[in-house]
Amino acid sequence: MDVATLIGLIGALVTVAGAILMGGSAGAFVDGASVVIVVVGTLLVTLMKFSVAQFFGATKVAFKAFVSRVCDPEVLIDKSIELANHARANGILALEDADVPDEFFRKAVNLVVDGHDPEIVKSILHKDLELTLKRHADGRAIFKAIGDVAPAMSMIGTLIGLVQMLTFMDDPKQIGPAMAIALLTTLYGAVIANLIALPIADKLALRSDEERFAKSLIIDAVIGIQEGRNPRIIQDMLDNYLPSSRRNEEREAA
Amino acid sequence: MDVATLIGLIGALVTVAGAILMGGSAGAFVDGASVVIVVVGTLLVTLMKFSVAQFFGATKVAFKAFVSRVCDPEVLIDKSIELANHARANGILALEDADVPDEFFRKAVNLVVDGHDPEIVKSILHKDLELTLKRHADGRAIFKAIGDVAPAMSMIGTLIGLVQMLTFMDDPKQIGPAMAIALLTTLYGAVIANLIALPIADKLALRSDEERFAKSLIIDAVIGIQEGRNPRIIQDMLDNYLPSSRRNEEREAA
Amino acid sequence: MDVATLIGLIGALVTVAGAILMGGSAGAFVDGASVVIVVVGTLLVTLMKFSVAQFFGATKVAFKAFVSRVCDPEVLIDKSIELANHARANGILALEDADVPDEFFRKAVNLVVDGHDPEIVKSILHKDLELTLKRHADGRAIFKAIGDVAPAMSMIGTLIGLVQMLTFMDDPKQIGPAMAIALLTTLYGAVIANLIALPIADKLALRSDEERFAKSLIIDAVIGIQEGRNPRIIQDMLDNYLPSSRRNEEREAA
Amino acid sequence: MDVATLIGLIGALVTVAGAILMGGSAGAFVDGASVVIVVVGTLLVTLMKFSVAQFFGATKVAFKAFVSRVCDPEVLIDKSIELANHARANGILALEDADVPDEFFRKAVNLVVDGHDPEIVKSILHKDLELTLKRHADGRAIFKAIGDVAPAMSMIGTLIGLVQMLTFMDDPKQIGPAMAIALLTTLYGAVIANLIALPIADKLALRSDEERFAKSLIIDAVIGIQEGRNPRIIQDMLDNYLPSSRRNEEREAA
Amino acid sequence: MDVATLIGLIGALVTVAGAILMGGSAGAFVDGASVVIVVVGTLLVTLMKFSVAQFFGATKVAFKAFVSRVCDPEVLIDKSIELANHARANGILALEDADVPDEFFRKAVNLVVDGHDPEIVKSILHKDLELTLKRHADGRAIFKAIGDVAPAMSMIGTLIGLVQMLTFMDDPKQIGPAMAIALLTTLYGAVIANLIALPIADKLALRSDEERFAKSLIIDAVIGIQEGRNPRIIQDMLDNYLPSSRRNEEREAA
Repeated sequence: MDVATLIGLIGALVTVAGAILMGGSAGAFVDGASVVIVVVGTLLVTLMKFSVAQFFGATKVAFKAFVSRVCDPEVLIDKSIELANHARANGILALEDADVPDEFFRKAVNLVVDGHDPEIVKSILHKDLELTLKRHADGRAIFKAIGDVAPAMSMIGTLIGLVQMLTFMDDPKQIGPAMAIALLTTLYGAVIANLIALPIADKLALRSDEERFAKSLIIDAVIGIQEGRNPRIIQDMLDNYLPSSRRNEEREAA
Repeated sequence: MDVATLIGLIGALVTVAGAILMGGSAGAFVDGASVVIVVVGTLLVTLMKFSVAQFFGATKVAFKAFVSRVCDPEVLIDKSIELANHARANGILALEDADVPDEFFRKAVNLVVDGHDPEIVKSILHKDLELTLKRHADGRAIFKAIGDVAPAMSMIGTLIGLVQMLTFMDDPKQIGPAMAIALLTTLYGAVIANLIALPIADKLALRSDEERFAKSLIIDAVIGIQEGRNPRIIQDMLDNYLPSSRRNEEREAA
Repeated sequence: MDVATLIGLIGALVTVAGAILMGGSAGAFVDGASVVIVVVGTLLVTLMKFSVAQFFGATKVAFKAFVSRVCDPEVLIDKSIELANHARANGILALEDADVPDEFFRKAVNLVVDGHDPEIVKSILHKDLELTLKRHADGRAIFKAIGDVAPAMSMIGTLIGLVQMLTFMDDPKQIGPAMAIALLTTLYGAVIANLIALPIADKLALRSDEERFAKSLIIDAVIGIQEGRNPRIIQDMLDNYLPSSRRNEEREAA
Repeated sequence: MDVATLIGLIGALVTVAGAILMGGSAGAFVDGASVVIVVVGTLLVTLMKFSVAQFFGATKVAFKAFVSRVCDPEVLIDKSIELANHARANGILALEDADVPDEFFRKAVNLVVDGHDPEIVKSILHKDLELTLKRHADGRAIFKAIGDVAPAMSMIGTLIGLVQMLTFMDDPKQIGPAMAIALLTTLYGAVIANLIALPIADKLALRSDEERFAKSLIIDAVIGIQEGRNPRIIQDMLDNYLPSSRRNEEREAA
Repeated sequence: MDVATLIGLIGALVTVAGAILMGGSAGAFVDGASVVIVVVGTLLVTLMKFSVAQFFGATKVAFKAFVSRVCDPEVLIDKSIELANHARANGILALEDADVPDEFFRKAVNLVVDGHDPEIVKSILHKDLELTLKRHADGRAIFKAIGDVAPAMSMIGTLIGLVQMLTFMDDPKQIGPAMAIALLTTLYGAVIANLIALPIADKLALRSDEERFAKSLIIDAVIGIQEGRNPRIIQDMLDNYLPSSRRNEEREAA
C-alpha cells in the first residue's frame, strides 16, 4: 500500500473542498454542464489519443499508483551475495533450487542455470527491462494526456461561457454570476489535471523508476555470478545501489 | 478500424456542440470572418512550413489515425517460433515457401533465404525501420504544426477584433457582443488544435510506435533464426514483447 | 521554386489584411511608433544574439526557404545502381568519367576513385554532412530568434502603452482607442513571429532535413559501391529511402 | 557553509517583505485560508508524487543546498600527482597507506590496491558515480515538484476566490478587497515557487554537478595511475579540469 | 570587439526609451520601489542558485559577449596544411619550433611532438574541449537564470501592487495610476530578461559554439598530422569546416 498517494489525493481534495465550503456556498461550485464538458470532453479526447484497450486499462494502471511492491535493494543485495557464495561453493547449477523472492530474479537465475551464453542472458534480461519500461510509459502516457487535455477542454468551456455571457449582456448585474459559471470549467480542469491526473502520472513514473532500479541491480548481480566473480567484488558493485549511510559493513562477513 | 479515434472525435465535437446549444443560441457561435481567418490562415501558414506534396498528403496520413492494422505481437511470436522450428528441421532455405503474414516479415525472411550476411540483413532491416519511422514523423509533423498554428492564428484574429472594438468604443452596451465575436476566433483555434489536430498527431505517434514495436520483434526473430539459435531461446527473447500476464506457457510445447 | 512558402506567406498576409479591412478601418491598425518598437527592437535584439555577418546573411538564408533544390531520391537511387553496375563491370576507376548530377555525389565518387581508405571516405563525407547541417542550423537560428524576440518586444511595447494610458486616465471615453494602440504592438509581434519568422525557420528545417536525407542516401550508395557490394543489395538498401508505394520493381532489371 | 543560498534566500524574502511594508498594510497580505490552500495543498500534492520516505527526507536534502563540501579540484590534482609519483617509485601497493582526503578517492585507491582488473575498477566507480547522481536527482525532484505544484494550487485558490466573489457580486465597492484576497494565493504560490523551491532545486543541481566534476577527476586520476601512465601525462589530462588561468605551471616540478 | 552585441544592446534600449519619451512622460516610468524589487530581488534569487564566486564572476563572463576572439577557420586550415607539409618533409619533431597562432593549437602540437600515443593525445584534447565547454555553459547559466528569475520577480511585484491597489480601492479615479505602477515591475522584468540577460546568454552560447568549432577543427588537423596522413586528405577533411563558397581551390597547390 502506498499511503503517500492516498493521503495526498484525499488530503488535497479535502483542502480544496474546505476552501470552497469556508466561502459558504458549495452550491455555487457545482454546474452540471460544466462538469460534462470538462470530464466527458477530456475522456473523449484522451480516448482519441489511445487505443480502446489502453484507455480502459487505465484504471488498472492507476491502481499501481496506490500500491507499492518495491523490493528493498538491501534484501536483493543480501540475496545476491548469498547466491554468489552458493554458486562459488557448489557450482552454478546449484542455483536451480535456490529460493529467489523476485519473479524477474528467478527468471534471470534460470537463464544462467540453463547454461546460456552470458551475452544471450544479458540481452534477454535487458530486453525484458526495456520492454517493461515501455509498457509502464504507455500506461503513464494516458494520465499525462488527461493532465494536458483537461485544461484545454476547460478553456474551451470557459470560452463558450464567456461568449454566451457577452452576447446577451444586458444587465451588468448578471455579469458576475455568469462569469462565475464560465470560470467553473477552468477550475474543474485545473483540479483534474493538477490534483489527480498529473500526480498519478508522476507516481507511476516513480514506480517505473523503482522497477528499473531493482531490475538493474538484479542484472548486475546475476551477470556477476555467471562470470564467476568474487562475491566481495559483486558486493562492492551492488553496494553502490545503496546510499552510503546504509552500506552495511557487517554483511561483508557473510 | 480504430473506433477510439472515431468515437473520441465525434463524441468530443458533440459534447462541445451540446454545451453551445444548451446556452440557447448556436447562432452566436458562428462568424464567417472568424472561421476564415482561423481555418484558412492556419492552413496557409501550415503550407508555408511544408512542401505542397506533404501538405496535400496530410489527409491520407490522417486516415491512418482512423484505421488500425496492428499485427498482434502474439501472432508474430507464434509465427516466428514456427519458422524457427521449420528452419532448424529443414534448413534456412526451406523458409522460402513459408507462409508469412506481414510484408516486412516476408522481406526479412527473403533476405535471410537469399543468404546475405547477417550484418547486411540487420543493416537493411534497421534502415527500413528507421526510414519508415521518419516518414511517419514527417506526416505527424503537419498535424502537430496545425495544432501550433491554430491557436496563434486565433490569437491574431482575437487581437484584430479587440482593436476594432476598442477603436470605435462609443456605446458601452455594444462591448459585450463585439468582444464575444473577438473571442470566437480563440474558441475556434482551441477546438481545431485540441479536439482535432493534436489528438490525430498523438494517435499517429501511437501508430508509429506500434509499427516500431512489431518491426523490432520481427528483426529480433529473423536475426535469431538466421544465427541458428535454439527456438526456445528465441521464444524467451520474444516473450519479453508481451506483458507477463499474456506470456503463454503452453506455447513452449510447440 | 518552392511555391508552398510563397503561396502560404502571401495568402496568410492577405487573410489577415482581409480580416482587418472587413472591419472597415485599416488606418486604426497602423501606428508608426508601434511598428518601430516591434520591428526595430526585434532586429536589434536579434543582432545582439548573433554576429554581424550572420545577421546580414539572414536574408540570403531566408531565400532558401523559397527555393527548392531537392534531388529526387528515385533519381539518386537509379544513378547509384547505374554507377554500381558500371563499377562492377569496369572497375572503380571507371567512375572517374561517370556523369554524376549532384555536387556532393561527385565529391563522394571522386574520393572513392582516388583510392582512399573506406574509413577515410566515410569520415570525410560524414564530416561534410554534419558541418553542412550545422551551418543550416545556424542560419535557421536567426529566424527562430526573431520568432522568440518579436512577441517579447511586442509585450514590452504593449506594457509601455498601458502604463502611459493608465497614468493619464482622466476621460474613460479615451480608454478604448488608447488601449487599441497598446494592443497593436502585440498584434504586430504575433504576425511577425507566427506568419513570417517561425514558418521560415520551419521550412529551413525541412530543407535541411531533405539535404540530410539525400546526402545519407549518397553516402550509403557510395560506400556500398566502394565495398564492391552486389548492385541488387545496394538497391535493397537504398529502396528503403522510398515509401513502399514508390519502390519501383522494374528498376531491378537495370 | 554556502552563504550564497542563505543570503539570497533571506535577502529575497526581505525584499518582498519590504515592498509589502512600503505599501503600508502588511495585514492585507495575510489570509489564513489562502495560506492553507497553497501551502498544505502543495505539500499534499507533492506527497502524492513521491514516497513517504522521500517526502520527509526532503528537509535533509534541502540542507545540502545550504552546505558546501566541494573538494577543490586543485587539491585533488595535486594529491593525484603525488600518488602517481608515489606509485611509480614504490609500486601500486604502496598506495595502501597513502593519505587520501576524499572518501570516494579512498575507495577508488583501495580498489586499485586490491589488484582488481582496470575494467572492474572503472565499472564499479562509474556505477557509484551514476547512482550517486541518481540519488541527488531524486532529492532535487521534490523541490522541482513543489515549484511546479505551488503555482497550480495557487491558481486553483484564486479561481475559487474569483467564483465566490463573482457569485455574490452585489456591491461593486466590495469587488476590490475580494479580488485582492483572491490574488493573494497567486502571490503565495509565486513566492514559494520562485523564491524558495526552484532556487533550492537549482542549487542542488549545482551541488550534484560539482560532485560529478570531482568524482570524474578522481576516476580519471586513479585509472591513469593504475595504467601506470607517466605522472606528467596524468597532470596534462587533469589540468583540463582547471580554467586556463589556474593551471599551475610550478606543480609540474612536483 | 563584437559590435553586434554593443549596437544591439544600446539600440534596443534607445528604442524602448524612445517609445517611452514619445509618450511624453518619462517620469511615469520610474518607480524606485519597483526597481528595487525587480533588480535586487532578481540578483538575490540568482545568487541563491549559484556559488558566490560564480555570481561575482558573471560580469567577467558577460564581458566575453562583447569581445570576439574568433580564429578564422580559413587561417586555421592554412596553418594546418602548412604544418602537415612541414611534418611530412621534416618529420613530426620539426613541428616543435613551428609558429602556431592559437594557444590550444600550440598545446595540441606539443602533445604530438612529445611523442604521446595518438589515443592519449586525442583523449587529452577532447577532455580539454569538453571541460572548456562546461565552464562556458556554467557562465552562461547565470544569465539564463537572470532571464528566468526577472519575469518571476516582476510578477511578484505586480501582484503586490495589485493587492495594495485593490485593498484600498475607494476612488475609481485612482485605479489608473496605481495600476500603472503595478505594471511597471512587469515592464522592468521584461526589459531585463529580453533586452539584456537572454541576449547575452545567447551570444555566450554562440561564442562557445565558435570555440567548439575551432577546437574541433584543430583536433582533426593535429590527429591527421600525427597519423601521417597525406596533406591533401587533411585538406579535404578540413575544407568541410568552410561553406562551399569559401573552399579555396587554389590552396590545393600549397
